[in-house]
Amino acid sequence: MDFRTLSSSPSQIQNLPYIHKVGVPPKQNLLKEITTTVKETFFADDPLRAFKDQPRSRKFVLGMQAIFPILEWGRSYNLAKFRGDLIAGLTIASLCIPQDIGYSKLANLDPQYGLYSSFVPPLVYAFMGSSRDIAIGPVAVVSLLLGTLLQNEIDPTTNAVEYRRLAFTATFFAGITQATLGILRLGFLVDFLSHAAVVGFMGGAAITIALQQLKGFLGIKRFTKKTDIVSVMHSVLGSVHHGWNWQTIIIGATFLAFLLFAKYIGKKNKKFFWVPAIAPLISVILSTFFVYITHAEKKGVQIVKHIEKGINPPSVNEIFFTGEYLLKGFRIGLVAGMIALTEAAAIGRTFASMKDYQLNGNKEMVALGTMNIVGSMTSCYVATGSFSRSAVNYMAGCQTAVSNIVMSCVVFLTLEFITPLFEYTPNAILSSIIISAVIGLIDCDAAILIWKTDKFDFVACMGAFFGVIFASVEIGLLIAVSISFAKILLQVTRPRTASLGRIPRTSVYRNIQQYPEATKVPGVLIIRVDSVIYFSNSNYIKERILRWLTDEEEQRKAACQPRIKFLIVEMSPVTDIDTSGIHAFEDLYKSLQKRDVQLVLANPGPLVIDKLHASNFATLIGEDKIFLTVADAVLTCSPKLVEEV
Amino acid sequence: MDFRTLSSSPSQIQNLPYIHKVGVPPKQNLLKEITTTVKETFFADDPLRAFKDQPRSRKFVLGMQAIFPILEWGRSYNLAKFRGDLIAGLTIASLCIPQDIGYSKLANLDPQYGLYSSFVPPLVYAFMGSSRDIAIGPVAVVSLLLGTLLQNEIDPTTNAVEYRRLAFTATFFAGITQATLGILRLGFLVDFLSHAAVVGFMGGAAITIALQQLKGFLGIKRFTKKTDIVSVMHSVLGSVHHGWNWQTIIIGATFLAFLLFAKYIGKKNKKFFWVPAIAPLISVILSTFFVYITHAEKKGVQIVKHIEKGINPPSVNEIFFTGEYLLKGFRIGLVAGMIALTEAAAIGRTFASMKDYQLNGNKEMVALGTMNIVGSMTSCYVATGSFSRSAVNYMAGCQTAVSNIVMSCVVFLTLEFITPLFEYTPNAILSSIIISAVIGLIDCDAAILIWKTDKFDFVACMGAFFGVIFASVEIGLLIAVSISFAKILLQVTRPRTASLGRIPRTSVYRNIQQYPEATKVPGVLIIRVDSVIYFSNSNYIKERILRWLTDEEEQRKAACQPRIKFLIVEMSPVTDIDTSGIHAFEDLYKSLQKRDVQLVLANPGPLVIDKLHASNFATLIGEDKIFLTVADAVLTCSPKLVEEV
Repeated sequence: MDFRTLSSSPSQIQNLPYIHKVGVPPKQNLLKEITTTVKETFFADDPLRAFKDQPRSRKFVLGMQAIFPILEWGRSYNLAKFRGDLIAGLTIASLCIPQDIGYSKLANLDPQYGLYSSFVPPLVYAFMGSSRDIAIGPVAVVSLLLGTLLQNEIDPTTNAVEYRRLAFTATFFAGITQATLGILRLGFLVDFLSHAAVVGFMGGAAITIALQQLKGFLGIKRFTKKTDIVSVMHSVLGSVHHGWNWQTIIIGATFLAFLLFAKYIGKKNKKFFWVPAIAPLISVILSTFFVYITHAEKKGVQIVKHIEKGINPPSVNEIFFTGEYLLKGFRIGLVAGMIALTEAAAIGRTFASMKDYQLNGNKEMVALGTMNIVGSMTSCYVATGSFSRSAVNYMAGCQTAVSNIVMSCVVFLTLEFITPLFEYTPNAILSSIIISAVIGLIDCDAAILIWKTDKFDFVACMGAFFGVIFASVEIGLLIAVSISFAKILLQVTRPRTASLGRIPRTSVYRNIQQYPEATKVPGVLIIRVDSVIYFSNSNYIKERILRWLTDEEEQRKAACQPRIKFLIVEMSPVTDIDTSGIHAFEDLYKSLQKRDVQLVLANPGPLVIDKLHASNFATLIGEDKIFLTVADAVLTCSPKLVEEV
Repeated sequence: MDFRTLSSSPSQIQNLPYIHKVGVPPKQNLLKEITTTVKETFFADDPLRAFKDQPRSRKFVLGMQAIFPILEWGRSYNLAKFRGDLIAGLTIASLCIPQDIGYSKLANLDPQYGLYSSFVPPLVYAFMGSSRDIAIGPVAVVSLLLGTLLQNEIDPTTNAVEYRRLAFTATFFAGITQATLGILRLGFLVDFLSHAAVVGFMGGAAITIALQQLKGFLGIKRFTKKTDIVSVMHSVLGSVHHGWNWQTIIIGATFLAFLLFAKYIGKKNKKFFWVPAIAPLISVILSTFFVYITHAEKKGVQIVKHIEKGINPPSVNEIFFTGEYLLKGFRIGLVAGMIALTEAAAIGRTFASMKDYQLNGNKEMVALGTMNIVGSMTSCYVATGSFSRSAVNYMAGCQTAVSNIVMSCVVFLTLEFITPLFEYTPNAILSSIIISAVIGLIDCDAAILIWKTDKFDFVACMGAFFGVIFASVEIGLLIAVSISFAKILLQVTRPRTASLGRIPRTSVYRNIQQYPEATKVPGVLIIRVDSVIYFSNSNYIKERILRWLTDEEEQRKAACQPRIKFLIVEMSPVTDIDTSGIHAFEDLYKSLQKRDVQLVLANPGPLVIDKLHASNFATLIGEDKIFLTVADAVLTCSPKLVEEV
């Protein structure tokens, strides 16, 4: 071991407080250091822990269970769990069927594709995923995103076949992206969208979706393709004289009021959670019956008209594997895949922490990716976890992912037998269902809490929100990501520094700004640097410290206090330093020498002290100028001061 | 003031050590907070300090002096300074003339453009720049970069006019980029290329340039346009039988040996610094005379042939302000401008710290930008500070930027009268001069020091080096920037955490890995988080802390030690926290509660304690669970332990 031994003999203890030498950690093998860093970065959750010291056959079984978790929890399945899953599955199925038909319109696809996407993907997820509460299917925000990005490339009204093919291509690449991120253990990239930015983005997307529904809600035929609020209001108000169909509005408004009331009941009393869950299906049934009876479609009420019967046709040959649309599909799939991941990750984490089980983020990504790859080959578009349906799933008492299997079966039955019944369903009802669904995405409470807690986060939130509403979904997303990155950049290039003083009656040194009662030490300036010192900030830190010195010297001179002879740099937050940082310290040392001020370091961490020795800076400054604590440093520099305890 | 008052009464002091409450800093006005952050980010050097409390006329004078520093230092100019500048100027002029002719070949331009770029830009810089030692003109690396990037777009041999126009366009936009960065005070972006990456990049570029010179050195006519080592060696070895011209090789080798010997003399004895400075010019004169006498050009020795006489023609109308080349010129100018800035910034800082004066980085950028903008309109290409010439300038005793004016005048005389004399100068001599010049860019000592100090930095260094040599200059640059960013990313997403123990005979808690003698506290686990807690790492930190707990519990159980009841998070390096971080702490608190472990916080900084209160986390955890130091926290959690001092 290479650490410094005690410097004082016992007899000196009564005279001086004990000053401990700064320890140099034992030299670590370079290979070991690299292995540890790689392990911490990519394998932070230690996935192979369970595989240790196991026989071969067991390792194979564990491996299979890792890829298909159903093999693990399926063994302990019983009737009680099935009962909970059955009820939950039926509940979310009733919710998802009308939503699916509505969301496919958001994505500019025919209604059956939404139902397809609630059939195959949940089945795949049930086999490969680990979240017990998530409900899989198409979601509003991703459908909107897909619809917007795809129609920028191909017009869905004039070229529906190519549009659909591009949608499948995008879904395929969304799945590839998700699975690749999971396999390469790059899951932490999803963390890069800050919570505040997501809140703003979701709120803006919700309002955008609700505005889009005004087309179906008011029965307007000619509507803008753009999503920003200005264009939408233009279309709405522009057609007020001859575009609004009062019959549609009556149907839509009535059932919207009904749905919102059902939601209110569900919130007020947790026991009635099932009310807002079955309300959409009831609305669909009632309104379809009503339109059928009154033949309202002849009076201008637009209806669904036709939903293709039968289950998912294969679509492998529809995916663009070559040609100009390959790259476009890849780009759109990448963006949609990342957003889908963010939603699923948020949902998965929320419920896992509520029910106190662990979720492996990277494994979830592989499951979601596989689900979308298989989906793209069976006529589905991007599916992910849905906030509203997962919440209903949870409250209906789901036990495992079997609830998704149950929902899947109900959708299958619907596709096989029940689709003709939707022929007379008015579009207005689908619009009302979507509006009532997305209203839950607008989280005002979260935004207020963000405002109170962190103003910069609030700027990110509002930037994303207004970006989506006034420009487009992609611009809002770009703003959200940029502001998130700018925050990291700011932290990295302009770290904080603080001047420290001694808290009376202790030997503790703290930030004078936070503890106004802390007293400065005469003749000594103590600066704490609150960050690692890398190339991105080393120059700034050096100049900032020199500026602290200049300011303090002026102040103390004006107050006729003794001149500063020592500058102590408290380095406890400086957990690492690189060559640029060491150069900056060498420059600082030389500048201070010219001003006749001695540089002293206090409390460097293990990495830092290692590098200070390796670069010979410790020899340059003198090893007796590096101390364990600020108190020790002050004592040695200004022995006149006596520490009271 | 809103800080907590003392909690213990004097009578308790004898019984218990004094426990100070954690201070909440006075609430700061939001506007003041924003102003301070903006000021610290963009105006860190407090440029308006000198303008305080000054009458209007004085402010105008100060303003003029800020833009044209020559008005400031020009007032105190005297004959002694002029003597130093004259000698230095003549010395660097003798060095720059052959270099300029050679560097324009690197940039695929006619020889006179190098001389033009040593005429106008240094004049502009002398009026607007603040470095006293920098020598302005074309440099090897930027010339190579320009040459490579430009010839990717236009072939200089078949379309020389358009090529030149694109070069001026790129120079114009390089100047715009530099000036804009300086005006917007975004100078810190230049810091983002780490020192280690620059060392690797420069070394690789030097070797690439030297390899390119083999064409002129060996007299090969057909040579690859690519710059990577494999292509170059192919061209060299492929033409060994019929391409090498032995007369050229003799001339080149002889004078190369002479130049290297002169360099060696200059290094050995500082007094002979002028020897390697005038050696290139002497070589040019001697070799030109020799070729003229022996008519060597008829035996296959390639010569310069013709240098346009006269000073810079205006070139404003040659710049592409519209059309397809506008964007290409902008892109190339952006990259070249940034590299030129990095070189000039490094040179400026080095000499400023050696002579102990301050340089304003942003002001320098504006000066360099203006210089290149004016240069693009007077037939110059991108000029910046040259390492070799600035070093010679310094050692020759330059006093101010007047040395650049002197050099400029000599170049003017050369352009007006002396250019015909260069007609018989062999290309081989220019190649030898360039080879001997760039050898100084290969800094082996720096690379070895980087290897010793920081292995990650060394990876960045080698990545850039090999990227330039084996791929291309742009790829090497891309690798350098990517590795620099990856380092920041790693620090931001995977911060370090450490388990703390008590150093015997003190109340100081330090990292157990660094201080093996530190003892763990029974029943208590102390984890220090070494970074701010933002969205980019909050999830990882939470999971890492829980993993520490699991590991420690297993260890202590195996050693039959008491169960962990308290988890203290030491937060001194956590200088900031955002909403994602607070959520992570709330999740951590709930997880710990389920495991019957109490969460305790120690030493939160001012920003953090503010946000903990604003988000009500402090109320959730209990305000009596937040302590000033780890020692206080341990004392309250495990009162049985007695602190010895």
